[in-house]
Amino acid sequence: MNALILGVDGYIGWSLAMHLAKRGHAVSGVDNYSRRSHVKSVGSTSAIPILKMNERTSAFKKIHGQEITFYRGDLLDYDFLTDVFKATKPDSIVHLAEQPSAPFSMIDRKHAIDTQHNNVEGNLNVLYAMKEFAPQSHLVKLGTMGEYGTPNVDIPEGFFEVQYNGRKDYLPFPRLPGSMYHLSKVHDSANTHFACRIWKLRATDIMQGVVYGTRTTEMIDDSLLTRFDFDECFGTVINRYCAEAVIGHPLTPYGQGRQKRGFIDLVDSIQCLRIAVENPAKLGEYRVFNQLDEVYSVNELAKCVAMVGRKIGIDVKIQAVRNPRIEKEEHYYKVIHQHLKNLGFRPTRMITDTIRIMLKDLLRYKDRIMEKSEAIRPKTTWMGVKQQAPAATESFFEKFDQTSIAR
Amino acid sequence: MNALILGVDGYIGWSLAMHLAKRGHAVSGVDNYSRRSHVKSVGSTSAIPILKMNERTSAFKKIHGQEITFYRGDLLDYDFLTDVFKATKPDSIVHLAEQPSAPFSMIDRKHAIDTQHNNVEGNLNVLYAMKEFAPQSHLVKLGTMGEYGTPNVDIPEGFFEVQYNGRKDYLPFPRLPGSMYHLSKVHDSANTHFACRIWKLRATDIMQGVVYGTRTTEMIDDSLLTRFDFDECFGTVINRYCAEAVIGHPLTPYGQGRQKRGFIDLVDSIQCLRIAVENPAKLGEYRVFNQLDEVYSVNELAKCVAMVGRKIGIDVKIQAVRNPRIEKEEHYYKVIHQHLKNLGFRPTRMITDTIRIMLKDLLRYKDRIMEKSEAIRPKTTWMGVKQQAPAATESFFEKFDQTSIAR
Repeated sequence: MNALILGVDGYIGWSLAMHLAKRGHAVSGVDNYSRRSHVKSVGSTSAIPILKMNERTSAFKKIHGQEITFYRGDLLDYDFLTDVFKATKPDSIVHLAEQPSAPFSMIDRKHAIDTQHNNVEGNLNVLYAMKEFAPQSHLVKLGTMGEYGTPNVDIPEGFFEVQYNGRKDYLPFPRLPGSMYHLSKVHDSANTHFACRIWKLRATDIMQGVVYGTRTTEMIDDSLLTRFDFDECFGTVINRYCAEAVIGHPLTPYGQGRQKRGFIDLVDSIQCLRIAVENPAKLGEYRVFNQLDEVYSVNELAKCVAMVGRKIGIDVKIQAVRNPRIEKEEHYYKVIHQHLKNLGFRPTRMITDTIRIMLKDLLRYKDRIMEKSEAIRPKTTWMGVKQQAPAATESFFEKFDQTSIAR
Repeated sequence: MNALILGVDGYIGWSLAMHLAKRGHAVSGVDNYSRRSHVKSVGSTSAIPILKMNERTSAFKKIHGQEITFYRGDLLDYDFLTDVFKATKPDSIVHLAEQPSAPFSMIDRKHAIDTQHNNVEGNLNVLYAMKEFAPQSHLVKLGTMGEYGTPNVDIPEGFFEVQYNGRKDYLPFPRLPGSMYHLSKVHDSANTHFACRIWKLRATDIMQGVVYGTRTTEMIDDSLLTRFDFDECFGTVINRYCAEAVIGHPLTPYGQGRQKRGFIDLVDSIQCLRIAVENPAKLGEYRVFNQLDEVYSVNELAKCVAMVGRKIGIDVKIQAVRNPRIEKEEHYYKVIHQHLKNLGFRPTRMITDTIRIMLKDLLRYKDRIMEKSEAIRPKTTWMGVKQQAPAATESFFEKFDQTSIAR
């Protein structure tokens, strides 16, 4: 089928483009390179060097024999977007083209506004382009598990039966987003749900956990590798820990480190997105998938990275830093995630195996990380005040308790 | 106290400004005149002629002896907004400065984007200005009952106890907004809730029913009257019916006319907003008030306007038109609205009395309405296709059943 990937230059976008092309889909992609410029603006760069999109698609064609068509442009430019829709006639649109960093959105007012502006209005343009030019197409929209926050009840997949004052209805599950970025995703979800209800578009809204990893099976040559961020804004927790480990920087859980989140390996994230693309929602259907594999606390992950690091000869320390975010550090967390399993999703990776690969991959780019290591330290606080120096709430070197991360 | 009214040139804004000033508050107001230009853009005008803001404030000073300070500018201009905050040092900020029309937001993609852009980013600027320049101030933010849609359960005031899989939490009540405009208000609510949770700002989010009426007690001279819209976009249902009645146009319920909504008299809306201003939320508190008086179906309202019209000698007909909206026409609707009553709100008007006053007021401006009568017919459909001619689903002249609107 014709798959159009919005945000094809990104960490997941490029990985998914190659995977879908290898599966035989006709893949096109759109990007405005904003991720590259945003990461540069916070003083960092991808740990793993990546080529420009036209070089990547050439390399992919040379190595794997398939075409990926690239359109450089911005979703906020509706004329551009409609030209792409007309040229690609998409059956599936995978929308990954949003500003994805919570800390980046919390830097100041301008970053908050830019995040909501870019994400909400870009997604509205996609919905209108679908309505106008591809009303049968299926939107696979990247949301985040962070839309739900950390309620004191189980988290269902988007909807649940409300019982209230003796009556019942099946309604959207309440959201408690924790940053201006997470809010933008909640707004997207509401707008997308509306478009499905009113215009009978179809969409799968992916509440994705935190993704980690350096590789997918298609990355058999350095020219095909995907980007890897480790700075405080764009480096997600496991990825950041691994970058810290290879440069001898202590791993830095925030605060008490008991915050739990859902996680998923890059390979399995791509598997899930492929399943969503190949099993579209029905016309008029808005469905929500909770896309994660396992739940860990950030302390457990630090211990896990430290253990694997030591096994391959890296001396890894852990030093908690003051939490720059305002979030619950002790909370209930149980997520229902059955829909993707029902469609065939099976996790294929052990987190320790992936971390070992990540550390080995990143050791090759130790100098690149070292050069930008100042970008790791959390400086953006949720109150909007720059932290000049991180205050360690406790400094410790803990033994890794293997049982705590047993699958 | 220092009250800053954002959207002071509007229907409610001007009425509230005079009321608060008469109560002894120091009132300032902001507007960019966008309501005037939007109404003009859909081929209409205020049925009741209104002066420019500087003329209105002069008239108010001459007649009532109080100052209302006006700042012309746009909330999207953050430098302007911060200047206003510095100049006015607000204790209360009443935010009415949003694009308030569901049909206007559904005209096309551009109107949808403009609505979400203006409303969401304007409100974000207000939240950041509060955080930066007035962290103790209280935001009274106008939302809409339309945020909730029409669920099959009672509608609580913003939050409810969730029981799910054997655990409990107190969470935001699910929203099912019915237009791009209503969605923008849902986004505002989520952003405002976040600002209270994270930054410890304080806010009252007003889920207001549909407001009707031509007058408040301060309007003792024509120079003090507030605007009155009757076009398909900005004329809400009772107001539009009254305008139709005075020009001999049949009243036009949409579809079956069994859609129920909450309603409140302009005088009582002003009373509620004054109560919210004078009884601020606590620091860090985000509270939701459902602000309405009575629930009617749009058919009941048509019958009510027809009955009152005939009593004062106007021959009023009712002719349903095809519903331009996509909405449930038969549904459960029960709204809990206790918070404002607990703070002392008492409805002061009978709907039939108010409609009689409205019809008499509007008869004076019959020619102005007649001149723009083409603007009444619904042309904007929720599918985004212009209706060329309205199709009557039924044409009837019904006797008004007084019991159906008994209080």
